[in-house]
Amino acid sequence: MAETPIEQLIRQIARLPGLGPRSGRRIVLYLLQRRESVFQPLLRALSAVEASVRHCSRCRNLDVMDPCSICADRRRDSSSICVVESVADVWALERSRAYSGRYHVLGGTLSALDGTGPEDLGVPLLLERAAALEVTEVVLALGATVDGQTTAHYLADTLAHCDVRITRLGHGVPVGGQLDYMDEGTLTAAFRGRRPL
Amino acid sequence: MAETPIEQLIRQIARLPGLGPRSGRRIVLYLLQRRESVFQPLLRALSAVEASVRHCSRCRNLDVMDPCSICADRRRDSSSICVVESVADVWALERSRAYSGRYHVLGGTLSALDGTGPEDLGVPLLLERAAALEVTEVVLALGATVDGQTTAHYLADTLAHCDVRITRLGHGVPVGGQLDYMDEGTLTAAFRGRRPL
Repeated sequence: MAETPIEQLIRQIARLPGLGPRSGRRIVLYLLQRRESVFQPLLRALSAVEASVRHCSRCRNLDVMDPCSICADRRRDSSSICVVESVADVWALERSRAYSGRYHVLGGTLSALDGTGPEDLGVPLLLERAAALEVTEVVLALGATVDGQTTAHYLADTLAHCDVRITRLGHGVPVGGQLDYMDEGTLTAAFRGRRPL
Repeated sequence: MAETPIEQLIRQIARLPGLGPRSGRRIVLYLLQRRESVFQPLLRALSAVEASVRHCSRCRNLDVMDPCSICADRRRDSSSICVVESVADVWALERSRAYSGRYHVLGGTLSALDGTGPEDLGVPLLLERAAALEVTEVVLALGATVDGQTTAHYLADTLAHCDVRITRLGHGVPVGGQLDYMDEGTLTAAFRGRRPL
């Protein structure tokens, strides 16, 4: 029997991350029963974002405008560029309110296996921006993974000729973390990075 | 600061059942990064369903057509009407493939507190259909809750003058259920409903 439009919709929702057939059915039923209060507003919000989402031509962030709202915000610190792997990292840092400069979104890490080279990560764009007079610091906020750190070292080498301070995020025990749950690498990093109380 | 369209979308997705801000962000990011392969097909499926979903004028099921695909299916048994509380129950019974007749969707249970009366549950429509010559059985497949059973008793009384057999679902230990996890009501029902092996 052919799939009905409702079954098709359930199948598509069930494939979203963290969802499955059961939550897909639950969500579709919820939408069908709240057509005006939930379904239509959600559809409008999705359409609005889908129609206008694009990569920022300066920092490769995803937003509904180009330059993105972070690049366009004149109150932000233009002297610092924070290099991150993904848009999710930009969102996480923005939620922390720890950083008020600009970003560069790589969109991945260097990978010989996947054929991901510097051009795919927008490195030429980053170099161009880092060479600007106003930029004094590049923070390499990459994941503490092998791929992340390999990419960070490559970027540090590549940026060496620019007149900028190159920093990385601090490694150590996450806030709220218990020592006996930490792996050895984290404890070693935390010891090396110890600070006077 | 005003909410951006992306933040609005995340907030709306986060309010769907079973989701929250974290899964909302994850889903939106997933959509943004898969614009052509996931986002656009999902948007088309949602639009198609939203534009055409309606209550079936015969059985009050939700579908993209009226009469719904179950009422319109000539291969189904027209001699039986299964009364359920919600569209979710129709979907659950259809997945079980235990039933091949027609449905009547109440859309709730009788409730003096909420002011839900027989008209709100489409009872006149049900009576009209049950009075048809071809209908020989009405299955009251309501929840084994106080409200469900109150409504079932009301319906049984109301349908008494129609020339139909009125049945309810069997109560007992669910398949896969362990005895020591069952409440006393379920065990009592299971004992009363015991069958020869």
